[in-house]
Amino acid sequence: MTPQNARFAHDVETLVMAMPAAQTLQLRFERIEPGEVDLVLPYQESLTFRPGQLQATPIFAAADFAAVSAAGTLLPAGWVNATIDCTLKIVGPADGTELVARARVIHAAKLLTVAEARVYARQAGKESLCATMLATARNLPPAG
Amino acid sequence: MTPQNARFAHDVETLVMAMPAAQTLQLRFERIEPGEVDLVLPYQESLTFRPGQLQATPIFAAADFAAVSAAGTLLPAGWVNATIDCTLKIVGPADGTELVARARVIHAAKLLTVAEARVYARQAGKESLCATMLATARNLPPAG
Amino acid sequence: MTPQNARFAHDVETLVMAMPAAQTLQLRFERIEPGEVDLVLPYQESLTFRPGQLQATPIFAAADFAAVSAAGTLLPAGWVNATIDCTLKIVGPADGTELVARARVIHAAKLLTVAEARVYARQAGKESLCATMLATARNLPPAG
Amino acid sequence: MTPQNARFAHDVETLVMAMPAAQTLQLRFERIEPGEVDLVLPYQESLTFRPGQLQATPIFAAADFAAVSAAGTLLPAGWVNATIDCTLKIVGPADGTELVARARVIHAAKLLTVAEARVYARQAGKESLCATMLATARNLPPAG
Repeated sequence: MTPQNARFAHDVETLVMAMPAAQTLQLRFERIEPGEVDLVLPYQESLTFRPGQLQATPIFAAADFAAVSAAGTLLPAGWVNATIDCTLKIVGPADGTELVARARVIHAAKLLTVAEARVYARQAGKESLCATMLATARNLPPAG
Repeated sequence: MTPQNARFAHDVETLVMAMPAAQTLQLRFERIEPGEVDLVLPYQESLTFRPGQLQATPIFAAADFAAVSAAGTLLPAGWVNATIDCTLKIVGPADGTELVARARVIHAAKLLTVAEARVYARQAGKESLCATMLATARNLPPAG
Repeated sequence: MTPQNARFAHDVETLVMAMPAAQTLQLRFERIEPGEVDLVLPYQESLTFRPGQLQATPIFAAADFAAVSAAGTLLPAGWVNATIDCTLKIVGPADGTELVARARVIHAAKLLTVAEARVYARQAGKESLCATMLATARNLPPAG
Repeated sequence: MTPQNARFAHDVETLVMAMPAAQTLQLRFERIEPGEVDLVLPYQESLTFRPGQLQATPIFAAADFAAVSAAGTLLPAGWVNATIDCTLKIVGPADGTELVARARVIHAAKLLTVAEARVYARQAGKESLCATMLATARNLPPAG
């Protein structure tokens, strides 16, 4: 996929990491390519439902931030986007030392972009699938 | 709907409020009836994407906890449940002093329960719709 | 909800019933109000997975046509709409003499409208829930 | 993925093609591998919303039958499955001479299997994406 903004990686990372929610979740980008993003959410006791097991909310967060960031890599400079529709299917425990969400764009249009994400629980370099998401982001031109 | 557990309200509230994630999100039950739950998530700067606006993650959290709790009110004593499938559609800003998620069960079976939730941004007693969710919870018998 | 087109019921019914797919499915509107539609899909052996049981496709069809029609009742004259996103949860058998899908709008905006539908299997005046849907329709202004 | 039933391809194809709905839709399997299925739904005027354009229902049908069939390839002999949850995102026109739905299993467990499908409109050997689906199938042991 061809980016419309040469600085897409810088712009997406800067935008997301400025969000208080992204800082609270301690998100970290591992890879940013045109239409593809890998995002890490480290295990935090405060986000579990019991010790060692992350609750659905951080699983959603990892998938959602990865999907909307992947969609964002294909936007023109100055545009932003926001999730309007997410379906999350949880298929395994979220019990590693961190979650890694791998997202990629399925279809990018001017107004709406569809992306998917897989979320893996990672421990000692081994990954096991814990969830999959389909998401739609709405694209917004620069205000003005 | 008829509860199978006379202490359903106590059991659901105790189970959820013992979760670290529920405490981090400062969740508070406002109403627990058979098959219906209203749950409050107060505004927290740490969960915003910019000042005054909650990010999608706390919207999901309010809807998901409310839906799974509503489903939980109809379980036999000792059973627990967990979300396996959520679809969230965001339709308005999450900008009040708190979110209130109103959930109710659509269909309860032995193994799987389907519930819906509406999430409202509340400010000075006025509520505006910000999202709707359909969720499926898996029901698990007591271990042992 | 307030319609923007005084002839909304006529226009929605005419538009839908002109579609070959609606005729194939033998759809019939039972009620059309602003933001709300009840739609009937009669049992047809050709749409079953085994005698007496409709397959998921006609369940989807009833829910989808009802939801997009409910959304259509709130559009200005001359606008049309199309489904872009549907989540269908099937919770019971589709085994009556007809399906009735009851849809209503959750949120209507200029560009996108969110609606929900419940699908019931109806037999001798008794209805049992067989599915629930959340749908998003995209709204399109008159061409030209 | 490893099939548990050596005759998985024969069994899935026989089961699906015996369904009246599959015959009505003129479905045809193009490929059946463990956990993966390609399924064709030919253009039929009777399934359009206007000449040349298939309505959402046949798009759903192609995706749903492909996803549940892919899930079925991994079941033990004698087991059957049924869709309980589908999310369909439509991203382009369904205007070719046939739809081809390519499905594959994301996660297979004893009770529930999650699969995804992409639906393409195909014309003169060229394919363009028209929809994507995430689906959950429930697995049922032999009756008796």
